[in-house]
Amino acid sequence: MSSHAGVSATNRAFMEAFGKGDAPGLANLYTKAGSLLPPNSEVIEGVEAIRGFWKAAMDMGIKGAKLETVDLEVYQGAACEVGNYTLTGAKGEVMDRGKYIVVWKDEGGKWKLHRDIWNSSLPAPSK
Amino acid sequence: MSSHAGVSATNRAFMEAFGKGDAPGLANLYTKAGSLLPPNSEVIEGVEAIRGFWKAAMDMGIKGAKLETVDLEVYQGAACEVGNYTLTGAKGEVMDRGKYIVVWKDEGGKWKLHRDIWNSSLPAPSK
Repeated sequence: MSSHAGVSATNRAFMEAFGKGDAPGLANLYTKAGSLLPPNSEVIEGVEAIRGFWKAAMDMGIKGAKLETVDLEVYQGAACEVGNYTLTGAKGEVMDRGKYIVVWKDEGGKWKLHRDIWNSSLPAPSK
Repeated sequence: MSSHAGVSATNRAFMEAFGKGDAPGLANLYTKAGSLLPPNSEVIEGVEAIRGFWKAAMDMGIKGAKLETVDLEVYQGAACEVGNYTLTGAKGEVMDRGKYIVVWKDEGGKWKLHRDIWNSSLPAPSK
């Protein structure tokens, strides 16, 4: 599979797993040494911790994630993606939207998320 | 210059320019097609817009930026850096700290920031 097709396939799997509330499935899309860099949090490292993070997000009412690739640069065995995300609730209402950068790696022939950072494009809540 | 040394040199230049309040100097460390992906903002594209963003941050009282590379993966003519940042005010007080991913490019023999996304590791302000 080409790297572009591989990244697209994993992003589709990400959206499907999110829509089904499948946190373990989501976590398995990350590399073994994968990490999340979420807003207002320290770094989350490893598949088990990543599963816990997404499970908590789902429990907080985030029921869907839409990912849209804006830019994908491919290197030897790795890729760097810039994209936009939208997180939705049970009624499809937008709970957050923003942008992300994902560093991808080819791990054993499968394209997996290796580093995943994002932030909201919505105005900050006033203090 | 090796890519590691090139990235380090530009990061040092970034911290120096920030410390001097030199927004144009800071903006010139980005590629011509460079972009910022700041929290609670749409994407900021191009050197002139990037200069305006950092100038506004300085005017808001951010007087120093410390960058610390955690992980740097180098590809052909590009690199992907994960790091930690600390932003300080006039008296050296911490105004924000968090993490970032920068996609680097070799542009005409100089290592420049191409994509720059970050978010805070501090708790979100309560709504």
